[in-house]
Amino acid sequence: MTNENFKMYEGKAKVLYATGIPNELLMVFKDDITAGDGAKKDTMPNKGKLNCTTSKKIFEYLHEHDVKTHYQSSPEVNEQFVKEVEIIPVEVVLRNIAAGSICRRYAVDQGVIFNTPLLELFLKCDELHDPLCNEDVAVEMKWATREQLRQMKEQAHIVHKLMTDYWAKYDLTLVDAKYEFGKDVHGNIILADEITCDSQRIWTKDGKSLDKDVFRQGDNMNDVEDVYNYIHKLIDADKIN
Amino acid sequence: MTNENFKMYEGKAKVLYATGIPNELLMVFKDDITAGDGAKKDTMPNKGKLNCTTSKKIFEYLHEHDVKTHYQSSPEVNEQFVKEVEIIPVEVVLRNIAAGSICRRYAVDQGVIFNTPLLELFLKCDELHDPLCNEDVAVEMKWATREQLRQMKEQAHIVHKLMTDYWAKYDLTLVDAKYEFGKDVHGNIILADEITCDSQRIWTKDGKSLDKDVFRQGDNMNDVEDVYNYIHKLIDADKIN
Repeated sequence: MTNENFKMYEGKAKVLYATGIPNELLMVFKDDITAGDGAKKDTMPNKGKLNCTTSKKIFEYLHEHDVKTHYQSSPEVNEQFVKEVEIIPVEVVLRNIAAGSICRRYAVDQGVIFNTPLLELFLKCDELHDPLCNEDVAVEMKWATREQLRQMKEQAHIVHKLMTDYWAKYDLTLVDAKYEFGKDVHGNIILADEITCDSQRIWTKDGKSLDKDVFRQGDNMNDVEDVYNYIHKLIDADKIN
Repeated sequence: MTNENFKMYEGKAKVLYATGIPNELLMVFKDDITAGDGAKKDTMPNKGKLNCTTSKKIFEYLHEHDVKTHYQSSPEVNEQFVKEVEIIPVEVVLRNIAAGSICRRYAVDQGVIFNTPLLELFLKCDELHDPLCNEDVAVEMKWATREQLRQMKEQAHIVHKLMTDYWAKYDLTLVDAKYEFGKDVHGNIILADEITCDSQRIWTKDGKSLDKDVFRQGDNMNDVEDVYNYIHKLIDADKIN
């Protein structure tokens, strides 16, 4: 269905194509899996399909709860029509529990539970390894306006609460998640990108990772596939939402 | 005058001793000069004396402008009596112009002038290389309370404006500066540590560094001494304040 002439953007895990529909793009999920800003890279059969359908289910759940996102529909198992947005190059990370970079950065033990979801902003830039930034810097550098950041933070907290509840219904713990936002043609700030095992840390009650940490920390691609398949099956089969 | 039995704390550039005066400590400035969290290290004769008297002059100037600091008096050329404070382990950096770590972190050209003094917070921790942090994290980790951070930021902006004016009178440009604050025995947040060539970047109108960058970037200790001497002489001789 895709035509290379219509390619508008290619990221590490997705490609965006122009469509005949006004202000809509086609987002194709790739089978590539990367970690460490692309330093570790592999291919996983069906990853595109698994992430596409996982993210579709989650965005539909968010729509039911009145969250505005770029997701429109999914014509193929690894493709989505999405609203055309200008991605704000500031990623919002919300953490319920300490894991990953925050542990290394501040010598915090993994597993420490925060009193309140902890919000951090990162510049979206692989070459610079997505550095941490604060609001003043993001505004000064014109990565986002003060009002856009206010809306992004507010929406991120709402989505994060919904996602924490979402995984809790499966007896799973949302540890942290990264959210990306875009500006649509009307100037509205809406949730964009994807919500999948790539963008969240999800733990079982006994601390087993059901997310990309299995790829980041391990060498067995079968284990990684099992995890992505497990999460996909769980939310695809269940009508819990 | 100092007695090793009374030593309470030793940092990279200063040692603090207990005194017979209630709630006062003796701060002795060392001749050591370090960069990169101690990775680069040397000794510079008279550095303790130069920084002590430079900082004394600057803190006296700040007192004249109603800024509360830990500085009390200077009994010897390399010693100061200071109020006993509990140092808040969050350093406040204010930048007028891009230089140093912010250039590397966000690929910003050195010399870019910011529209407004840009404030960043860093955890004071050599082992972790003083990582950038945001307010929410500082509060969650109990490094400071929300109210302490509010006061620190407010005072840092006031001091930074005064210091920008201070150097402008000598036709010099304050590029950026690091400020440390402490909690005194009454719970008040006051400016602590020192303000010297170690804690600020100062440029001449033609972009020559008159600060620790000469040590960070060079190998000639005579050049470093010249710069510290120059700044000391300038503000020690002049009655401009």
